[in-house]
Amino acid sequence: MIVQVLSTGSELLMGDVVDSNAAFICRRFWEIGIRVHRTTIVSDRMDDISQVLKSISQQADVCIVTGGLGPTKDDLTAAACADAAADKLVLHDAALDSMRPFFERKGYELTPENEKQAILPAGAGILENRHGTAPGFYLKIGTCLFFFLPGVPSEMKQMLGTQVVKMIESTFSLSAPVPLMRLTVFGLGESKTGALLSDFEELFPNLVVGFRAVFPLIEVKLSLRQKADLKNEAKQELEKAGNIACKRFGRHLVSDKGVSMAEEVGRLLVKQKKTLAIAESCTGGLIANWMTDVAGSSDYFLFSGVTYSNDAKMNILGVDQKIIIDNGAVHENTAAQMAAGARLKSGADIGVSTTGIAGPTGGSKEKPVGMVCIGLSTQKQTDARTYVFRFDDRLMNKQMFAATALNRVRTSLLG
Amino acid sequence: MIVQVLSTGSELLMGDVVDSNAAFICRRFWEIGIRVHRTTIVSDRMDDISQVLKSISQQADVCIVTGGLGPTKDDLTAAACADAAADKLVLHDAALDSMRPFFERKGYELTPENEKQAILPAGAGILENRHGTAPGFYLKIGTCLFFFLPGVPSEMKQMLGTQVVKMIESTFSLSAPVPLMRLTVFGLGESKTGALLSDFEELFPNLVVGFRAVFPLIEVKLSLRQKADLKNEAKQELEKAGNIACKRFGRHLVSDKGVSMAEEVGRLLVKQKKTLAIAESCTGGLIANWMTDVAGSSDYFLFSGVTYSNDAKMNILGVDQKIIIDNGAVHENTAAQMAAGARLKSGADIGVSTTGIAGPTGGSKEKPVGMVCIGLSTQKQTDARTYVFRFDDRLMNKQMFAATALNRVRTSLLG
Repeated sequence: MIVQVLSTGSELLMGDVVDSNAAFICRRFWEIGIRVHRTTIVSDRMDDISQVLKSISQQADVCIVTGGLGPTKDDLTAAACADAAADKLVLHDAALDSMRPFFERKGYELTPENEKQAILPAGAGILENRHGTAPGFYLKIGTCLFFFLPGVPSEMKQMLGTQVVKMIESTFSLSAPVPLMRLTVFGLGESKTGALLSDFEELFPNLVVGFRAVFPLIEVKLSLRQKADLKNEAKQELEKAGNIACKRFGRHLVSDKGVSMAEEVGRLLVKQKKTLAIAESCTGGLIANWMTDVAGSSDYFLFSGVTYSNDAKMNILGVDQKIIIDNGAVHENTAAQMAAGARLKSGADIGVSTTGIAGPTGGSKEKPVGMVCIGLSTQKQTDARTYVFRFDDRLMNKQMFAATALNRVRTSLLG
Repeated sequence: MIVQVLSTGSELLMGDVVDSNAAFICRRFWEIGIRVHRTTIVSDRMDDISQVLKSISQQADVCIVTGGLGPTKDDLTAAACADAAADKLVLHDAALDSMRPFFERKGYELTPENEKQAILPAGAGILENRHGTAPGFYLKIGTCLFFFLPGVPSEMKQMLGTQVVKMIESTFSLSAPVPLMRLTVFGLGESKTGALLSDFEELFPNLVVGFRAVFPLIEVKLSLRQKADLKNEAKQELEKAGNIACKRFGRHLVSDKGVSMAEEVGRLLVKQKKTLAIAESCTGGLIANWMTDVAGSSDYFLFSGVTYSNDAKMNILGVDQKIIIDNGAVHENTAAQMAAGARLKSGADIGVSTTGIAGPTGGSKEKPVGMVCIGLSTQKQTDARTYVFRFDDRLMNKQMFAATALNRVRTSLLG
């Protein structure tokens, strides 16, 4: 089965917005064992869209189209589709009906503006949009089955996940989903991570190894080739490969379930019934933000003191003025007191801290941009370590500092 | 002039990596007054690439191709190009010569593996790669001029910026770069923002109005059509349109320079020589993280207390236990005390706070998911307001809460 993806939208061609819809669709298809063959971005112009639709109808079996279903006059996808399919546009009753529940739930009025979104090719089948106003639709042009979805990611994802994938699965006989293992790794570069698995192609001929930088982590994706028969033998091969990879990554392996650093730290805290407090200077709240992105984090995350000023370090966390005067704010002694202060002030089991120089200014020869001191404090012990990174980018430094701090917590919980 | 962009690489079609190269190329062309008409991602397969090259050669005047120039057996772009151009592959002396300086600088040996990268279509002109091993090249297929660049972003960007853009500028007569205005808007949906400018196309026929959701802000981009003559008259039209748009957005206009909410709040704080402290419950550090993403924020941002637990709200910020017992943590009284506490504990001029329910759990009929109380405290006055949003998504709620809190600070600074 040949699948293509088409994104419409002039804003995508101005380069301000990256086409994350297409990537999402590719990933979703990959999960059900289908490789997308080609993706295209085309402008909002009616004849551009129509031309591409005709051309794809001669190349593909299935095409997912996103964007251009809204109520404004820039939204020309339905008209272009009718043109390419030599169909006529009608006010589509089924489309109108599919729109009513959303409008009723929200208490919106269905205006003539909105009704325009139900003007669709006469031969189209309707896809309900539960999260927005524009219905989607599907239609065959030539022998290719096109699905038209809104460009708003949340709407597109919901409709793809529930309705489109099901229709494709029932229309086409698919091979079984490709089994997958996702490992997250921290503290090895992409090339070192790759080098550790360089013999895998030979050792496991049915295996596909993929790497994806989710800075500052690396995600390693192990999957089976589609052509491999997916009986037990192949699955055992995947499992065996996963185990070997985990062993080789050692303490650099964050998770064999592909979760983020903050999720893994949260999982370990829950498991060991421990609580965490943070004292952040140079990371400026990023660690707390990561921790609280995880639902349920209030069970183990108590407090972060984002103490950007020295006064706040002293008044909030109880760092000694003398320590800061003698050593400066960026120092292991300061970091250690910050971690202990956050722990004691909040009654947490573990305190972790960051103080460093994210840049672009504030660096010196002794304390360059990219240097960070990370403190860790438990009831038993408080210490701090210094790390120097060379990214020359404020946001990358913040992310690397934050991940390094959480990694200290993680490895301390591993025992 | 019709320009297309082609990215090769099966990893891009697995959806793990977003095609940021194409977006960069679109943006770079936009800056020199050229709109890219279409972008395509195709797999690494030789016949796929060759077929797309042939098809583009019939549609475009210029095409930028990235990827597939490396030394491995997956790198088939040069061979596909030779096939599409009906040219033959040769070991290209000029390509080899262009490679030597990089290898000498790095002290690398030029192996036969690397020499493969100099096997290019006989008719190709060479583009030097100063940051990597693979030379680029250019070649006409039909009437379309193709530029082939490596997929490594740093190498591609350097070659595009120095060599390719210059060649295009000297080969084609380009109009001047398109002047631009970027406005950021908060508190209006995309459709309301659009409706406020719905007559602009009529009022300003030379103007192009673009909208881009940078959740939870909207960016409005005003630019002139390429075909407009770019003399003073047209520029005055842009300025006039910008002024009218700013007036219509009123207090919803965050910036007429296109900057983010945190940058604008920082700019106002610097201008008025004021300092800020934050108390975050449901936003979990996100506000502090946004503020400290801006370089130089240590001049005005003193402290954020991310007080997730009630104990932390009391012990760190000095919230009365009775207030929490009587009202709960999510309440305007609590929010007001949090804002005042952050301000007083850190000695800042302004304190702002958030306490609410980001979800997915923790909501009730009285206090639903999406509800947030935002406190604002100055020496003169402390108060709090309640907002309810309906995103049904933890991360979107956090972002909307954080932006709403900063917007309270921003509007208070506007006087």
